[in-house]
Amino acid sequence: MSEAAAPRQAAATGPALGRRIRVDVADRGYDILVDSGSLARPETYASLPAGEVAVVVSNATVAPLLADRLLACLRQRFRAVSLVVLDDGEQFKTWDSVERIVDALLAAGGDRRSTLFALGGGVVGDLTGFAAACFMRGIAYVQVPTTLLAQVDSSVGGKTAVNHPLGKNLIGAFHQPRLVVADLETLATLPQRELIAGLAEVIKYGAVADLAFFDWIEARLDDLLRRDGEALAGAVSRSCDLKAAIVASDEKESGLRAILNFGHTFGHAIEAATGYGSWLHGEAVGCGMVLAADLSRRLGGIDEVGARRVAMLVERAGLPVRLPPLPAAELLALMGHDKKAEGGAPRFVLLDTLGRARVAPVEEGLVRDVLLDHGALR
Amino acid sequence: MSEAAAPRQAAATGPALGRRIRVDVADRGYDILVDSGSLARPETYASLPAGEVAVVVSNATVAPLLADRLLACLRQRFRAVSLVVLDDGEQFKTWDSVERIVDALLAAGGDRRSTLFALGGGVVGDLTGFAAACFMRGIAYVQVPTTLLAQVDSSVGGKTAVNHPLGKNLIGAFHQPRLVVADLETLATLPQRELIAGLAEVIKYGAVADLAFFDWIEARLDDLLRRDGEALAGAVSRSCDLKAAIVASDEKESGLRAILNFGHTFGHAIEAATGYGSWLHGEAVGCGMVLAADLSRRLGGIDEVGARRVAMLVERAGLPVRLPPLPAAELLALMGHDKKAEGGAPRFVLLDTLGRARVAPVEEGLVRDVLLDHGALR
Repeated sequence: MSEAAAPRQAAATGPALGRRIRVDVADRGYDILVDSGSLARPETYASLPAGEVAVVVSNATVAPLLADRLLACLRQRFRAVSLVVLDDGEQFKTWDSVERIVDALLAAGGDRRSTLFALGGGVVGDLTGFAAACFMRGIAYVQVPTTLLAQVDSSVGGKTAVNHPLGKNLIGAFHQPRLVVADLETLATLPQRELIAGLAEVIKYGAVADLAFFDWIEARLDDLLRRDGEALAGAVSRSCDLKAAIVASDEKESGLRAILNFGHTFGHAIEAATGYGSWLHGEAVGCGMVLAADLSRRLGGIDEVGARRVAMLVERAGLPVRLPPLPAAELLALMGHDKKAEGGAPRFVLLDTLGRARVAPVEEGLVRDVLLDHGALR
Repeated sequence: MSEAAAPRQAAATGPALGRRIRVDVADRGYDILVDSGSLARPETYASLPAGEVAVVVSNATVAPLLADRLLACLRQRFRAVSLVVLDDGEQFKTWDSVERIVDALLAAGGDRRSTLFALGGGVVGDLTGFAAACFMRGIAYVQVPTTLLAQVDSSVGGKTAVNHPLGKNLIGAFHQPRLVVADLETLATLPQRELIAGLAEVIKYGAVADLAFFDWIEARLDDLLRRDGEALAGAVSRSCDLKAAIVASDEKESGLRAILNFGHTFGHAIEAATGYGSWLHGEAVGCGMVLAADLSRRLGGIDEVGARRVAMLVERAGLPVRLPPLPAAELLALMGHDKKAEGGAPRFVLLDTLGRARVAPVEEGLVRDVLLDHGALR
């Protein structure tokens, strides 16, 4: 399992707003709409199968801001539209929340033709997608991501899951959405910390698959941080292009798709060790990318300049670059339970150079050295 | 969605014991081994991918009888082999049990390459399959069914699920096993009530897809009830042939496969209304088939002789033919939540004639009449 990324570069030009990006997967393809104000436009949902029941899943933070507009829009298309509001936070990404969604579906008279809508960030999207995967062995769902992280990453590709005390996303399913509505207007109310966390995944795409995009992010970082509309549209659009191409070539992550986990082996360990919800996922990934780039360099991959560019960009974005003060042994133990682990030897996404990655097992001693050099306790 | 069954009839001749029946599904096919003593033979598992960790899932009834033999056999192939013993009964077919399986996998150091083994009846098989579907978004599992019902039906075809208070199997996944080991020797210790419950599904195959098989069951029923080895091998083998052909033509039940739910719309309502575990699944299906045959007759399908043959065979097998004394309204309400329901109108598998079925919605008044004529309360 050692592949280089070679997604198509086609869509790098042209306007980034009002774009429709196709994700070609085995069963059926679907579109990602990157636009502004699309959430509340009925025509956005015109391609969906007709249905009797729609249930919108959101959280206590997002629902008051956006649910009414979505519900009003869906009422033109579905006979019964209801809303279930979950608590906000990674710590609620559990089976209990999936059961609340199932209960809401049944209360609404839901059946196999019902459609779920995920209105929120990655947690809402993963929970809603997993509920859709499990309810009556699979119903339709639509992603309406309202965070930058969800728009560029978690809403696309059909990975759904809940957490387990021993590791993130240990329980889940591959289940593709019918549509992804990336409405940039919803980012207006996003807290700055969340925006920055989303930039971690944007940087990731550049680092593992597209040097030109990495250059572009370096150049436009200040615009992105002050939410310039054209810059955000470019970042979301290009990230979705790259993700769509990678997912299309490897839907179930038997090879290439694993490079999208760059920084995530370290990141998941940080999240698990600090308790889900204390570090944001993107923050843990940001720090994880710095460590993974350093690990790559020590293994003879990316050169020192490249590794430093990753660390600099992560730091400039305002993401953490040092580990929390946790024992290295604890982090190592948690990596053993990461999904990329096979036969006990943790595997890492490594950079050969900026824009090119592969996956390989790494000997524990070397991982420990990297942990210790980036703030872990002996 | 109204299709007639046309599975291949090829394997009706030839020895029924020592057979290897192929199930051709999209991702990968797999074998059903129908044999005697195969559970404890290492070569049975020779086709499985090598793995570090194997976890056998069983229940408190079956484990003391059979687990040691299976574990000893698997220890020749896997580095770490462990056993998780669940409580026995339909009422334990819940998410809590899935979590126990996941915890056992993690405790054993399980990862994506681990394999689960379901040693037991339909409940163990459905739970284990669903745990395998969800753990790290999908790992391998093997069915080792030890009841007649599981050997002829639930272990084949990749339907996995847990129950919800509002309906059976409302939460689940399609996830095909790597292998099904139908060892007829395991039926030796099966309580007679369980054997009879399994015959309900055997009768079902004849009724919906194979008149010659239905004739054969009528002729060999007494042999089956006294567990004649050759008769049991014939019943399991032919049932698996039919199921394999139907599953191969419609893995996700978008059409033909639904005919295998003959008797199940009524049956699931009976199970839900009486509380899971009071009637065995096969008993509820047996009674459900009598009602569904009567419903078919009233709708101009099967003739009176045919409907009576179904009822007679169910009764001769020792299965219930009358509903428990429950209000018809309660049963009707429960059918609204059955997975075959679409847009509120419950759908039923109806017999056009013996050996030929289709699926159609049925007007509630007619269903109510059938319920009342078969023992439901007004």
